[in-house]
Amino acid sequence: MSLLDLILGRPLPNREYQKRKLTAFEGVPAMGLDGLGSSAYGPEAALTVLMPLGAAGLAYIAYVMWPILGLLAVLFISYWQTIRAYPNNGGAYIVARENLGTNPSLLAATALMIDYVLNVAVGISAGVAALTSAIPPLHPYTLPLCLGILLTITLANLRGTGEASRLWAVPTYLFVASFFAIIGIGAYQAVTSGGHPQPLVPPPPLPDAAAAVSLWLLLRAFSAGCTAMTGVEAVSNGVGAFKEPRVDRGHRTLAAICAILGVLLAGIAYLANAYHIGAMDQTQDGYQSILSQLAGAVVGRGIFYYVAIGSALCILCLSANTSFVDFPRMCRLVAKDDFLPRAFATVGRRLVFSVGIVYLAITSGFLLTIFGGITDRLIPLFAIGAFLTFTLSQLGMVAHWRRELRTAKDARARHKIRASLAVNLIGTITTGVALAVILVAKFMEGAWITVLAIPPVLLLLKLTRRYYVALDARLREDGPISLRKADPPLVMIATEGWNRLTDRALQFALQISPDVVAVHICAMSGPDEDDSREAELRKQWSEDVEAPARRAGLRSPQLVVVDAPYRRLHAPLLRLVREAAKDRPDRVIAVLIPEVMKDRWWQHLLHSHRAWRVRHALLRYGGSHVVVIEIPWYLDEPKVQPEFDQAKTPDPVAQPGED
Amino acid sequence: MSLLDLILGRPLPNREYQKRKLTAFEGVPAMGLDGLGSSAYGPEAALTVLMPLGAAGLAYIAYVMWPILGLLAVLFISYWQTIRAYPNNGGAYIVARENLGTNPSLLAATALMIDYVLNVAVGISAGVAALTSAIPPLHPYTLPLCLGILLTITLANLRGTGEASRLWAVPTYLFVASFFAIIGIGAYQAVTSGGHPQPLVPPPPLPDAAAAVSLWLLLRAFSAGCTAMTGVEAVSNGVGAFKEPRVDRGHRTLAAICAILGVLLAGIAYLANAYHIGAMDQTQDGYQSILSQLAGAVVGRGIFYYVAIGSALCILCLSANTSFVDFPRMCRLVAKDDFLPRAFATVGRRLVFSVGIVYLAITSGFLLTIFGGITDRLIPLFAIGAFLTFTLSQLGMVAHWRRELRTAKDARARHKIRASLAVNLIGTITTGVALAVILVAKFMEGAWITVLAIPPVLLLLKLTRRYYVALDARLREDGPISLRKADPPLVMIATEGWNRLTDRALQFALQISPDVVAVHICAMSGPDEDDSREAELRKQWSEDVEAPARRAGLRSPQLVVVDAPYRRLHAPLLRLVREAAKDRPDRVIAVLIPEVMKDRWWQHLLHSHRAWRVRHALLRYGGSHVVVIEIPWYLDEPKVQPEFDQAKTPDPVAQPGED
Repeated sequence: MSLLDLILGRPLPNREYQKRKLTAFEGVPAMGLDGLGSSAYGPEAALTVLMPLGAAGLAYIAYVMWPILGLLAVLFISYWQTIRAYPNNGGAYIVARENLGTNPSLLAATALMIDYVLNVAVGISAGVAALTSAIPPLHPYTLPLCLGILLTITLANLRGTGEASRLWAVPTYLFVASFFAIIGIGAYQAVTSGGHPQPLVPPPPLPDAAAAVSLWLLLRAFSAGCTAMTGVEAVSNGVGAFKEPRVDRGHRTLAAICAILGVLLAGIAYLANAYHIGAMDQTQDGYQSILSQLAGAVVGRGIFYYVAIGSALCILCLSANTSFVDFPRMCRLVAKDDFLPRAFATVGRRLVFSVGIVYLAITSGFLLTIFGGITDRLIPLFAIGAFLTFTLSQLGMVAHWRRELRTAKDARARHKIRASLAVNLIGTITTGVALAVILVAKFMEGAWITVLAIPPVLLLLKLTRRYYVALDARLREDGPISLRKADPPLVMIATEGWNRLTDRALQFALQISPDVVAVHICAMSGPDEDDSREAELRKQWSEDVEAPARRAGLRSPQLVVVDAPYRRLHAPLLRLVREAAKDRPDRVIAVLIPEVMKDRWWQHLLHSHRAWRVRHALLRYGGSHVVVIEIPWYLDEPKVQPEFDQAKTPDPVAQPGED
Repeated sequence: MSLLDLILGRPLPNREYQKRKLTAFEGVPAMGLDGLGSSAYGPEAALTVLMPLGAAGLAYIAYVMWPILGLLAVLFISYWQTIRAYPNNGGAYIVARENLGTNPSLLAATALMIDYVLNVAVGISAGVAALTSAIPPLHPYTLPLCLGILLTITLANLRGTGEASRLWAVPTYLFVASFFAIIGIGAYQAVTSGGHPQPLVPPPPLPDAAAAVSLWLLLRAFSAGCTAMTGVEAVSNGVGAFKEPRVDRGHRTLAAICAILGVLLAGIAYLANAYHIGAMDQTQDGYQSILSQLAGAVVGRGIFYYVAIGSALCILCLSANTSFVDFPRMCRLVAKDDFLPRAFATVGRRLVFSVGIVYLAITSGFLLTIFGGITDRLIPLFAIGAFLTFTLSQLGMVAHWRRELRTAKDARARHKIRASLAVNLIGTITTGVALAVILVAKFMEGAWITVLAIPPVLLLLKLTRRYYVALDARLREDGPISLRKADPPLVMIATEGWNRLTDRALQFALQISPDVVAVHICAMSGPDEDDSREAELRKQWSEDVEAPARRAGLRSPQLVVVDAPYRRLHAPLLRLVREAAKDRPDRVIAVLIPEVMKDRWWQHLLHSHRAWRVRHALLRYGGSHVVVIEIPWYLDEPKVQPEFDQAKTPDPVAQPGED
């Protein structure tokens, strides 16, 4: 078993694809963690904006949270419809492509890609912030912790979406259960104490008011809080990952996610106000997240606190998992349309789109490193992409229903379509307004970076497609291929000396063509070499090669002796090739390169890499009349690698309950 | 002009080799800088050992320096003889190989290699110590300065030995002139003032005595001072680098180096005592080298001081150059005997042995980094290798003369040989004794590392040779090669789809063999792919390929459709190859790999690397009946690279005075 097998698991055959898909129960940890994790940093982001208002600011959280909950309801209904209308990894890209055209679809893809990358960075750094809030001595290790978690999630997802989601199911449902309990207990106490519950562990005192409330501040708080909604679109982007009936399973997953998220957002906002819990400065030591203060206030710092905060920490860290499920699937669709490198559409060893996963890990790791692992600086970059996607997706659905309306005859069907259209229209308007607010509110804080990043990414997508289109135009060919009887190629063997390697090459050369030229290169190892050997060489050639060839009834290979004044094999060889091509431009020239195969790393130190260099130079500069033939020569005949016979091994026994 | 041409200069043809060789005037900077530079750190090292004696210790420097000068005289005479006896890059390795056998010669080679690497590190760090002595604010940048100088010397030597030595000639002769002047003025003043000259800039006061003098201390000072002698062997190792008459030029170079070194050592020791100059702790700020104190005491801190110290600094930094001249030449000889990788014997683009130069730079840079660029810690490691080499070389010459004596008949010749033998015998004994003293004196300080390092290096040399011997035994072949009329190969073309690339491959396949199998691999891009296309494929094949082949009078290629359940092209291909080989083990199987050639870096991102992977897997695991044929397909036909026509460009006009 190789190291790769150990880390990523054995390669999976295509026939296991269906088995690897998700149930709704697995769907929540797989795709919902972005949404659920948002409940931790959305309210926190809004409260951070309200910080300058001091204690008085807490009362305003309701003005921020109600619109957010309303928006959540609109998004829920409209994505419900999207899942039904586009049950194949729909998402904003496909909805926009089908209904709005190429450019809007690419805009949606760009926005989603930026959003997914940022989600990984924000999710993990929020998780680590929760961890350092619970264990302050870890604070200096913020960045290494972030990168370590990123690596863990990446490896889990490279093993497979199902594996990853089953791994994360425990902390997910633990988180939901404990925070439902905390919110329940807290709400009960708040209500029974007349709105002024006694915290078990009092939260730190709130700072004095440094500013007066303003509409601008509330709008900024709203736009910061909107990050709580990112992740709601995740299910619609990944419907294809579900087992059949996937629309049903998708609907159930979406409903679960939205319901949990709504309860959490409402509960946190209510209790923050009741218990006088405000945001703290994340860059300071002693920082505590809202969730940590809330849990402490409601249930004290007992075991339950640590279970709840531990699971919240996991959820936050793992909220990045949603990106790892959806980003590769979305990129695959874009790559299938030739707007991304085709490698994004390739199914990897574990039946996931490994290239997308690795790319996502690298870019978000880069972001985490640049920003030092602190969420706050990333949030302004974040919401634009998400809300741009929401709006485009809603707009696409509006176009979709309008087209449906044109073809539908039945009055009842038309009625239903009109209702759907209304929902998506409301969705378009509300998300569009939210987008505009966020854009204005956060522009100076860093949202301009996202806005600036979109056009170059769009351009790259379009250039990629242009390259592929041009390539395919050159490569494509219709109808029968043109075959003709052509002369066998001119075969050249270049060598500095003669041995079994070159014998094998000569033998093979004579098998494929009667026109064989052996090129003996002199003075390769430097000026001290005796280069007066040509006569001797020719004599030896006539005895050792020409005679046996004649005896075997073969046409004798020709010997050419050339100098390599610059001690480079490929230079005189390329010249010979070019001269030969000048004589007969239609003939293929095959250059034989015999090579000792190295199967230990140290052998690479002991052999020259001349074969590699010659091959490279010939392929790079030879031109299309040149063909390179590599003849391996083994010190020890290679053993059969077991992996190549895997297809013959019987199916592993299907696990019960998986189908 | 490429970047490489700019940094290293254009590639040089073999015919310029003689022109690139050295005169005696160039020989001193090329090979003498180790010896001359030693004059700076040898006395300093001895005085550092004497430090605990305080002011009283200075008087003992004479007891240390006289034996060293005597040893220098012995070495001079015996290397004079070695140069005459072995005028081809003789050196200890060849002398020992010819006269003492393989094991002693390998011991000499090992000792020399260690010595050369350490010389680079010690030389550069001594140079930087002199620099920080003159400009104390540079002290914190010791290591970066060391590595920068190493890079400069490496690049100069990669451009060519002659280029490097002409570059260093100015500081070399400036150094000699200025310190001869300083020693002359200082000696004059010391003598005229009755042995108590008045320093212009008084050296810092000497510390109080912390220990009493002992024989052990003097022996340690002697062994430390012996590092002043390293570099004397350099000329004998590199005689081949001189223009003809090389023995003459070698002798002149050796004489110049030894004379200058002798004057410097004697003068520094005399003046250090006269002016009360002692060593200072190198790791402390405010450190000043002996040379700096001496120049300040004799001529004050005027312009002359800075010229002298500047040139000394250059000399010290450049003393590493000797290693860069000799190490690659010595390694080449060892590599020609198959004890080192053969790449060490390859002449590089500028007619120097580039691999040796690069290897030397890497290992000494590694040492500099580990030791933080401070000489003192490296010196104990240093002298062992040098003196082991001296002793072996002397011993070899003794054996040489004894053999000569056996064959010489003429009485006068015998007399001369006996005289030579006597000199080398004295040399053997004195260097042997010095080696023993150094070994004992410095064993605990770090010389044990050198002693421990020798056996594994020796072992590596022997293992390398064993590999080459085994390889050659397998590859060598005497007499006529066995050629027979064999069937043309079975040609396989693997592809996922059909286009112009595969058409070219098919056309070429039919040129070299009537047995062509086209392998169509299904389900490569994952489980979603429609794999019910086989019937359609076969129909298309019969129309588009079989029919045209029949019309062209060619045997139709066969179509095989296989599944790649693990989405890896090479796995089913290797299985097919193995099955075909089972049927007819004597037949060669040629696998054609058509590939789009990428000439821009970003194309590598847009294309799959499947061709590379298939080629790799086939060569690695295919076995010796497999041959890989690469068929390049160019988006734009490649342009002829000018470098490949260099051999045709006329000779650059020979520069006057170079021959």
